[in-house]
Amino acid sequence: MASGLCIAVVGATGAAGQTTLRILEERKFPVRELRTFASERSVGKSVTFRGEPVAIRRLEPAAFRGVDIAFFSAGSAQARKYAPMIVKAGATVIDKSNAFRMDPDVPLVVPEINAHAARGHHGILACPNCTTIVTVMPLKPLHDAGRLTRVIATSFQAVSGAGVNGIAELREQTLAWARGEPLVPRHFPHQIAFNLVPAIDTFGPDGYTGEEMKLVNETRKILELPGLRVAPTTVRVPVFTSHSIAVTAETEVKITAAHARDLFERFPGLTLWDDPARQRYPMPVAVEGQDDCFVGRIREDLSSPNGLSFWVVGDQLRKGAATNAVQIAELLLRS
Amino acid sequence: MASGLCIAVVGATGAAGQTTLRILEERKFPVRELRTFASERSVGKSVTFRGEPVAIRRLEPAAFRGVDIAFFSAGSAQARKYAPMIVKAGATVIDKSNAFRMDPDVPLVVPEINAHAARGHHGILACPNCTTIVTVMPLKPLHDAGRLTRVIATSFQAVSGAGVNGIAELREQTLAWARGEPLVPRHFPHQIAFNLVPAIDTFGPDGYTGEEMKLVNETRKILELPGLRVAPTTVRVPVFTSHSIAVTAETEVKITAAHARDLFERFPGLTLWDDPARQRYPMPVAVEGQDDCFVGRIREDLSSPNGLSFWVVGDQLRKGAATNAVQIAELLLRS
Repeated sequence: MASGLCIAVVGATGAAGQTTLRILEERKFPVRELRTFASERSVGKSVTFRGEPVAIRRLEPAAFRGVDIAFFSAGSAQARKYAPMIVKAGATVIDKSNAFRMDPDVPLVVPEINAHAARGHHGILACPNCTTIVTVMPLKPLHDAGRLTRVIATSFQAVSGAGVNGIAELREQTLAWARGEPLVPRHFPHQIAFNLVPAIDTFGPDGYTGEEMKLVNETRKILELPGLRVAPTTVRVPVFTSHSIAVTAETEVKITAAHARDLFERFPGLTLWDDPARQRYPMPVAVEGQDDCFVGRIREDLSSPNGLSFWVVGDQLRKGAATNAVQIAELLLRS
Repeated sequence: MASGLCIAVVGATGAAGQTTLRILEERKFPVRELRTFASERSVGKSVTFRGEPVAIRRLEPAAFRGVDIAFFSAGSAQARKYAPMIVKAGATVIDKSNAFRMDPDVPLVVPEINAHAARGHHGILACPNCTTIVTVMPLKPLHDAGRLTRVIATSFQAVSGAGVNGIAELREQTLAWARGEPLVPRHFPHQIAFNLVPAIDTFGPDGYTGEEMKLVNETRKILELPGLRVAPTTVRVPVFTSHSIAVTAETEVKITAAHARDLFERFPGLTLWDDPARQRYPMPVAVEGQDDCFVGRIREDLSSPNGLSFWVVGDQLRKGAATNAVQIAELLLRS
């Protein structure tokens, strides 16, 4: 281990997998050997790591012998099928999918918030949903200061949350519009360019989507508040990367806007951008490529005595996915 | 009056003024004579009404002699300056600007909701802000059924809300992106293509924008609920026309999702689009060009016992502006 770890990246050709490779480089993660995996049709292709090509391998448990940590960004079905075998082969799996997040035996970790939870892992650690991560980052310091009682969150989610296909679809539809051609939905259920799709994931019988219930359940698990009341609305918007969330949070103890600014400023992984006089507030294009979550538009709620409203933006592929996963690996390294 | 009215449209070259002309045609409003006005630099140009060109005139009170109803879509400063003179000249002014909305002597009217308020006018009637109109449409039947106590509203506002310059800016920035050129903000404070700008209008000292306070104050005035608690967040999104609002509304009496669907379906000016199994919910591109407001994603709030969440979309230039103004004129005709 002194000379580094053997690292696997599963889903290495996808948007989150590609970003994971970039973040392992940027953060100088001690990679001794890198093995990259993707779907059958990518076998034979290669990805780039530290300027060198790395061949894509076929996903089979035997290929994980000797792997220390496997970053898994290949979807829930693949994670359910392969993660337990990879753990048996001796690796620790950090999974970006929804497969294990609510499993009571699997820690669901945002390192700035609940690093302690990582210690109890049994081979698999889960990375929360991207919208959840960006939302809980500012909720944690508010909870510590005033005890959260209710959260009302409305998301504005970038197409990158749907992976490379989502990014390609916004790009292709916009180019078609520029050429005066029809805009054809392929990946999303409806046109996404110049439109809003107020439905992400499938619907439950109560009218909430899977994405909305992830926000409710994962927020409760990460903050260790099983009874927290959360009202979620998740919407896909024509933005390439970075998710934005408008939040109204209520606490037992009133937190003023000035106090909240101070709390956010001091919380690791959050950056305060809240200077209305200079038209300074977080926006997706300004946050793209950054690891922190950016918070602004902080104001006391006009509709509840202990409410606080704010706007938080995070790069969905970085803190919302790859950065958080690599931070979990860094936790494992240190322990 | 038997052969029709003399109608003036002020701001006739703007986005709302142009839509007003279309809606007067569509609704076969009894126009005997049409006079159109715009800024100095448009004088000499013409607009089209019922297939005929109508010359743009200079805005001066003398030109309003004989006018019955003047539709005013020329901004607050112009409205403050000219509307009282036009009233003195004998016309009734229906103003789309923010100039008189909160004036206790001026009715603020959404005809489906408070037609009775129009009766008390003294020559000026105000049309609410576009986001307010779309938001209050579904709030009214909920209030009548269960008495509203609190509204949390997050808007996704199209660039048409900023007029023809806003529409041109999204168009130009998107075309620049397609050509690989830089995206230059001219009208909005920041890039709007592929971005979100969580600030509309100027900021007040408490951190709320003018747009957000319009939503609070106008909703209270229209619903005649001066103490209604409203939590507003308004955001500009890269959509051409149609504003969308994610709303959580709390009522004294619980309203189930099924009851709300029934209430919305029966309310004039609302159309229910709420069939998740068929991926059917309101979206800006689907609503563009329609006069109704469309409501969907109806579900009982997970975070409050008497809360209901929904998503409402309305064409900002139609029900959010011109249609509502022409409906007010129709009220005047009938009385």
